[in-house]
Amino acid sequence: MVVRGAPAIGISAAYGMVLAAKAAVDAGHSSACSKTMLVAVNAASELLAASRPTAVNLFWAIRRMNRVLEQLLPTLGEGSVQAAETFIKGFSAEAVAIHDEDLQNNLLMARHGAELISALAKDGQAQPIVTHCNTGSLATGGHGTALGVIRSLHEQQLVDLVYVDETRPWMQGARLTSWELQREGIPCALIVDSAAASMMARSPRQGWVIVGADRVAANGDVVNKIGTYGLAVQARYHGWKFMVVAPTSTFDPAVATGAEIEIEERPGSEIVQIGDSRFAAEGVRSINPVFDVTPAALIDYLVSERGVINRPRRDSIAELKLGVD
Amino acid sequence: MVVRGAPAIGISAAYGMVLAAKAAVDAGHSSACSKTMLVAVNAASELLAASRPTAVNLFWAIRRMNRVLEQLLPTLGEGSVQAAETFIKGFSAEAVAIHDEDLQNNLLMARHGAELISALAKDGQAQPIVTHCNTGSLATGGHGTALGVIRSLHEQQLVDLVYVDETRPWMQGARLTSWELQREGIPCALIVDSAAASMMARSPRQGWVIVGADRVAANGDVVNKIGTYGLAVQARYHGWKFMVVAPTSTFDPAVATGAEIEIEERPGSEIVQIGDSRFAAEGVRSINPVFDVTPAALIDYLVSERGVINRPRRDSIAELKLGVD
Repeated sequence: MVVRGAPAIGISAAYGMVLAAKAAVDAGHSSACSKTMLVAVNAASELLAASRPTAVNLFWAIRRMNRVLEQLLPTLGEGSVQAAETFIKGFSAEAVAIHDEDLQNNLLMARHGAELISALAKDGQAQPIVTHCNTGSLATGGHGTALGVIRSLHEQQLVDLVYVDETRPWMQGARLTSWELQREGIPCALIVDSAAASMMARSPRQGWVIVGADRVAANGDVVNKIGTYGLAVQARYHGWKFMVVAPTSTFDPAVATGAEIEIEERPGSEIVQIGDSRFAAEGVRSINPVFDVTPAALIDYLVSERGVINRPRRDSIAELKLGVD
Repeated sequence: MVVRGAPAIGISAAYGMVLAAKAAVDAGHSSACSKTMLVAVNAASELLAASRPTAVNLFWAIRRMNRVLEQLLPTLGEGSVQAAETFIKGFSAEAVAIHDEDLQNNLLMARHGAELISALAKDGQAQPIVTHCNTGSLATGGHGTALGVIRSLHEQQLVDLVYVDETRPWMQGARLTSWELQREGIPCALIVDSAAASMMARSPRQGWVIVGADRVAANGDVVNKIGTYGLAVQARYHGWKFMVVAPTSTFDPAVATGAEIEIEERPGSEIVQIGDSRFAAEGVRSINPVFDVTPAALIDYLVSERGVINRPRRDSIAELKLGVD
């Protein structure tokens, strides 16, 4: 939980594997043989893969790094200083590429999402928006996913007010999102998660719920921070539009539906205690799922770097031709 | 916010007026004239009335005490020790009666609500339940409103599991409800508020959302703790039944709809800070409404001490013939 946000988790894993490779080189007096390198990087990637089960970007980034590892390993041979230098250069270039591509994808998604909302905004009216968790530059390679769309909308003066869910239990909305929005002068108001429905009901205008994703199944079901599913139900009930913004690195064609995705359950202690304040009595049971599944049927728009899918379904996602690797 | 729970607020106000009367008697060397008493009790009741704007029980209890005050004031005359003793006896008897009646009403409501759920339970199966905030013996004169129904259901072994919303921002679910349920051996699990929707979607059986109320309008709209409205939307979407449990002292025939009821807004600081932990950056705006309005159309059953109203509407509530006083 030190690094959070699906894209940032993937990027960090890639850099983590580079660090493991560098450590192997250092341990071998500025060189490493191919066998040592394989063991060292594999150990790191297994550790990284075990850290968080839900965000698919993690596995995607590890696979991508492993592919480059396979290509580069033979160049190490029995190990020399020069071979090690070339290896590290090539290996870290892939991590940097993952990072750069994520930023480029952020910018593309922001453009796609904002263009759509702008096209649908009657009389160019600024929109009320609800967002959940943090999907900004602190969760991604740069601009952000959902927050990237909101940033680009604000540049077009199309943001009326962003209601920021505080996002229990980890408070990413309060700690991160409200800070990012405030810093950029985007009008926002922090609310407790359970107030979102009321804000929609009170709003004179129907707006948008814009969120990120930790994993998108082949049928368009979306796994994201706990509370996202509830917001999707509220959006449908109140006639607000529900938009998910996620790069294709978050898509997992290998899982047919959201029901197949393992939902990380974290310790109940994360609910009953905040800082030094303990809220519940000793021994009280708690259920603390970190994510929930929003069925595709509740998603109006799924935005990736490749464009916008309206009412995502198995066939419209299949058209993206994302390889199962 | 030291005393909370609509019925408990009313009961406390009644006792508060008795304390003010006693203080006036003490200040007058064990006596008080009718004029002094009127000034002293009025000052206290005005202070109490200004403390919380939303819970109608507060005003109901103050009115009831004022009626007895009017009757008893002439007996004080110019003030004597004996007259003062008789006055205090009569005045405090009314506060005790308010308290006693609330407990009796709790027991009646618990019976009505549990009988209904028991009658609707297929094959006598235990029910999953979601509850919000605290409506137990810590919020009322005794047994509780929504929690009273849950208690009585548990006695009939009809409770599968109570999902307890932690209830941000004040954490009444975590601090009070989970403690009360655990102490009585009622199976319960604490969740963050935004997880309720997901629990309903994951549950193999459709169950009940059971909550209390701070005020019920003439048309059946219900004002209750922020998050209640969102739960009502979730219940309707997931085919769960939504039950509100509130004594008629909570009904306010003087307000036509929920839209007319003033919703208490509390300082944003209650959201951004928990204990010594501050979450949001300095200057971040927050919106902190304490209550929300659940329209009657989303309420399946409204339980009072007088019985159960199915799908409450203006006419079915009018049949209770609650005086506007």
